[in-house]
Amino acid sequence: MHKVIFDTDPGIDDAMALLFLHRHPEIDLIGVTTVFGNAPIEITTRNALYLGEAWNIPAPVAQGAGHTFDPARGGSYWPTAIHGHNGIGDVPVPEAVSRTADPRPAYQFIIDTVRAHPGEVTLIAVGRMTNLALVLKHDPDVAALVKQVIIMGGAFDINGNVSPAAEANIHGDPEAADLVFTAPWRVVVVGLDVTMQTVMTSGFLAEMVAGGRADIKLLSDISQLYIDFYKSRVGDGMVVHDSCACVYLVRPDLFKTRSGPIRVVCGGIADGQTIQKPDGRGFPPGPWDGHPSQLITTDVQPDGVLSTIRAALVDGRAA
Amino acid sequence: MHKVIFDTDPGIDDAMALLFLHRHPEIDLIGVTTVFGNAPIEITTRNALYLGEAWNIPAPVAQGAGHTFDPARGGSYWPTAIHGHNGIGDVPVPEAVSRTADPRPAYQFIIDTVRAHPGEVTLIAVGRMTNLALVLKHDPDVAALVKQVIIMGGAFDINGNVSPAAEANIHGDPEAADLVFTAPWRVVVVGLDVTMQTVMTSGFLAEMVAGGRADIKLLSDISQLYIDFYKSRVGDGMVVHDSCACVYLVRPDLFKTRSGPIRVVCGGIADGQTIQKPDGRGFPPGPWDGHPSQLITTDVQPDGVLSTIRAALVDGRAA
Repeated sequence: MHKVIFDTDPGIDDAMALLFLHRHPEIDLIGVTTVFGNAPIEITTRNALYLGEAWNIPAPVAQGAGHTFDPARGGSYWPTAIHGHNGIGDVPVPEAVSRTADPRPAYQFIIDTVRAHPGEVTLIAVGRMTNLALVLKHDPDVAALVKQVIIMGGAFDINGNVSPAAEANIHGDPEAADLVFTAPWRVVVVGLDVTMQTVMTSGFLAEMVAGGRADIKLLSDISQLYIDFYKSRVGDGMVVHDSCACVYLVRPDLFKTRSGPIRVVCGGIADGQTIQKPDGRGFPPGPWDGHPSQLITTDVQPDGVLSTIRAALVDGRAA
Repeated sequence: MHKVIFDTDPGIDDAMALLFLHRHPEIDLIGVTTVFGNAPIEITTRNALYLGEAWNIPAPVAQGAGHTFDPARGGSYWPTAIHGHNGIGDVPVPEAVSRTADPRPAYQFIIDTVRAHPGEVTLIAVGRMTNLALVLKHDPDVAALVKQVIIMGGAFDINGNVSPAAEANIHGDPEAADLVFTAPWRVVVVGLDVTMQTVMTSGFLAEMVAGGRADIKLLSDISQLYIDFYKSRVGDGMVVHDSCACVYLVRPDLFKTRSGPIRVVCGGIADGQTIQKPDGRGFPPGPWDGHPSQLITTDVQPDGVLSTIRAALVDGRAA
């Protein structure tokens, strides 16, 4: 069983990933931490609590950062055209969610949980890297106790999505991401190079809904706005960014990877760009030197990812 | 006939490109301008004069820039491991070259020549972009009179060669390159994405030498150091970066291209990186907006490029 803390900003594709982690029989979801990104922190936390309640997910939720790691960075832009004004596709959310968040801030929840299970916990982070950077700032020794960190973010051999250079999660907090990529833990980065290839058609989703489980119906309702957004970009369907990172945990064989230190551009026209120095390539001395090699995913078998998601959502653990 | 001014820093692969331009029956090489890069400006100019004399090339040579467009940039590093201490593979060059350079600086030579043949001149630039930036600074209206600008430089969907982000020609003068890419003339960028695929084996070169023309023997002698350098990188052979840009002029059908504005990162860890915003891709407002779409080459038929080079060198115009 993989013990997982899911760091997320639900977020529509986040919602699918959350349900995947809860349902997959080899995954033990032991905590959910929230971060600002697809919506302000109060909303992403409320959404995590709401989805946890609706889907009967036992994992506790701890609220995380509401602003960038470097406070000098300006305010945020909320991608309401993609995730809706309420972060989950403008599907009505009850005013009152009976669940409440863990009293600890997300970074403290992560530190405590990792220290309680040294070497056993995988962090899957699919929003900005702010909470993970705060973990490293408050307790740098925890890095050595984390089993691995799987990240949805970045764009390596292709263009970004918020600028030609940068992907949204990394662009939203470049200093945090640079700290996370260069820390002494094992990081696997699942970026746009593979997620943009992994499109779940609306027919595929509808077929899962037809199976009849109410949780998938809610997931499908949430996803319609997101599908509309991606229509002009990838045709019919939704890019399942965040679920790709979760599938990597259980099916790394579906991905091609490349190893090497990763740095993040902070400032200038390429702000938030992720750049890997591939191992074995020689360059003059530079800012990649002395940092740990991390894995990026460069290619994927999309059909394998989609069927892994379906198997968990449809046939996985009962709600 | 294509009227061409060749802006170059010979340079070993520059030497092959120079001979190609001189020999190709559809090209009228009307000038050679030099720039610092593979060696200091005095050496690249001396090499251009020497090769012109050795190969009986009638085009005049005008000396260009010896330092970056922005004087605040620091000094240069000379790639002696690739091009030798004398810029042409440490093959002995006679102390005295009888030819002398045109008295005008390269940018003025370009301005005068383009104005004498409005709409007819193609600039092929295979070194740093400094001379072209100086043209734009001293006579911005000339841009509209240039037929097209073909550049060897940059790396778009792959890593650079002097850093994971940047290619040498652009990294050597990023401010100049940014000015050149955003000016109102038609630019085609032939970067590492295609040149690194275009490897001339030493056997291919030896076969051309066996044809018996003395100029190819000199070219082959010059190239041995360069072939040694690339042995660990691409196996046996030489990457014919600069000739790729020249072949584009006569055989654009051998290349796949992508259109969109190009900017160059100036400063930071990605210093000198080239980033294109592909046309038709939507992004929030950013630094690519309002600049002309230029072409980059994304793929190539290497065999077609190599046979085009051989045809010109072996069977082209008599020396």
